[in-house]
Amino acid sequence: MVSAVQAGRVGRSVRVGLDIGGTKTDAVAVTDGGEIIGRIRRPTGYGDEAVVADVVESVRELRAEFDISASDVMSVGVGIPGLVDTANGRVLHAVNLGVESLDLAARASERIGVPVIVENDVKAAALGAAALRGDALSMAYLNLGTGVAAGIVIDGGIWRGSRGTAGEVGHISVDPNGRVCGCGQRGCIETLCGGGALARAWGRPGALPVRDIFDAADQGDTDALLLRGDLARGAAAAVRVLVLSVDVETVVIGGGLTALGDRLGDSIRAALIADAAGSPFLRSLHLDERIELLPPGSPAAALGAALVGVHTPQKEIATHG
Amino acid sequence: MVSAVQAGRVGRSVRVGLDIGGTKTDAVAVTDGGEIIGRIRRPTGYGDEAVVADVVESVRELRAEFDISASDVMSVGVGIPGLVDTANGRVLHAVNLGVESLDLAARASERIGVPVIVENDVKAAALGAAALRGDALSMAYLNLGTGVAAGIVIDGGIWRGSRGTAGEVGHISVDPNGRVCGCGQRGCIETLCGGGALARAWGRPGALPVRDIFDAADQGDTDALLLRGDLARGAAAAVRVLVLSVDVETVVIGGGLTALGDRLGDSIRAALIADAAGSPFLRSLHLDERIELLPPGSPAAALGAALVGVHTPQKEIATHG
Repeated sequence: MVSAVQAGRVGRSVRVGLDIGGTKTDAVAVTDGGEIIGRIRRPTGYGDEAVVADVVESVRELRAEFDISASDVMSVGVGIPGLVDTANGRVLHAVNLGVESLDLAARASERIGVPVIVENDVKAAALGAAALRGDALSMAYLNLGTGVAAGIVIDGGIWRGSRGTAGEVGHISVDPNGRVCGCGQRGCIETLCGGGALARAWGRPGALPVRDIFDAADQGDTDALLLRGDLARGAAAAVRVLVLSVDVETVVIGGGLTALGDRLGDSIRAALIADAAGSPFLRSLHLDERIELLPPGSPAAALGAALVGVHTPQKEIATHG
Repeated sequence: MVSAVQAGRVGRSVRVGLDIGGTKTDAVAVTDGGEIIGRIRRPTGYGDEAVVADVVESVRELRAEFDISASDVMSVGVGIPGLVDTANGRVLHAVNLGVESLDLAARASERIGVPVIVENDVKAAALGAAALRGDALSMAYLNLGTGVAAGIVIDGGIWRGSRGTAGEVGHISVDPNGRVCGCGQRGCIETLCGGGALARAWGRPGALPVRDIFDAADQGDTDALLLRGDLARGAAAAVRVLVLSVDVETVVIGGGLTALGDRLGDSIRAALIADAAGSPFLRSLHLDERIELLPPGSPAAALGAALVGVHTPQKEIATHG
């Protein structure tokens, strides 16, 4: 377990990790030993310039607040929602951030003076969640946010697959008669348990539609009961896919929907247990015991981004350089 | 590409590989360089004693027919349909062979005098298919036989996963209203494209029910058209699951149903193309170009079994010892 934030450590090698979300950026400073010695949050900007500034300012704020000298910062890792060309540090189609194509690593690195490594946010969070668990077992991080995708960690590194679609379980169809997905297929796992798809299917006003669905379901609303069931069914399907294909030991569930905490976790566990009731084979997998929810406020995503600087794609780089 | 059978090579290190099927056993002798220098087929026996004898006799026949001295045989690998405790060389629940629990490695090794390694037949075939392809890219071997399962090969070795369910894509449900599976779930991929499930759904007499389905479909039989469509739909779903979870570069399709050759391959490719028609995302994956069928009579399974002696679970052992 990485220890809690401890301010005031100076004069050591530090890696900075940023999780750039649609509304806020979470940034941590991490020692070589994996200890988080500083953490700040700031609102995320919109558009190319603002995103570059976000990286620069996060590093500046961390350094100022936690007395970290410029020469102590060895690398900056950035987890960002969008398609990432990791080799070139370029971000593509980060729609929520107003970014179409941005050479973020080069532009931020030029201004900070240290290597900047960019990674897809779900993959970075997977690495962070694995580090927080602290064992060497295989793991998938299942992100339930607006969309649904998983990051897979094997032997402490991100498993990318052959063409970068490893963990894209959100777009596996599990119901030929299901709702149409943004990807053009029907019945994708994401149509069942993606926050965006649920909000569209719910169709009522409200800032937190998935919470509204749970509240309304508690009061017996029929639509809400169906959608809450879909969420659990979709997440359970994602867990089964991950175990019956890659066979990860544990599935850690994160993303915006985990703000629902136990209400979400209990509902997914109940679905896994119900689905296994008629199947000795499924029961033998003990899936309900193999899922975990990230706690609210977990630094997993930012921590993982910091570690991306250590674990580059499929290979380790030298820690000091 | 491993070269064709060449008889008469003697006096070198040889690994024997056996693929024990429900009706016949395929056995090859392979050099250290991966060249197949001998191959025999014999009917498979039923029950513990017969299966042990099968291994012993296959080695004896190979040695006699291809002038291989006893001291040249370094190991014997056995691929067998059933649950395999690879660490102890024990076969469990090999129903088609009349074996409930058999310490095959120990009993065969005692009689042959060399190490015997036992592996699940699909995993062994995956290793052999990867060796025949001859590149280092990730690959899944999707076995369409009585049941449906995949073996995953990464970095030249079998990917087993955390608890041995890696590649068990046959039991991922893709239709909540589908047929009930032997595993107790509904709409499993195996209910769509497993030879056993198809034969049950077809329900008409005949030694080769899946071939009968294709023939009847060609003549416009409605039931047959539906089932042929199910087969293609199920196999296409399995391919998508493998690419959107593990993201293997290639899916090699093998197993009994590949006796149908191009009729099967064309039908699966057509399903992949049709499913992708409405989805730019799926089209971008080019799945129809990433599948291959094993040719009839391919020695992949037996060859893979021979290589199991080289690539033990997740680790390489010394080649000479």
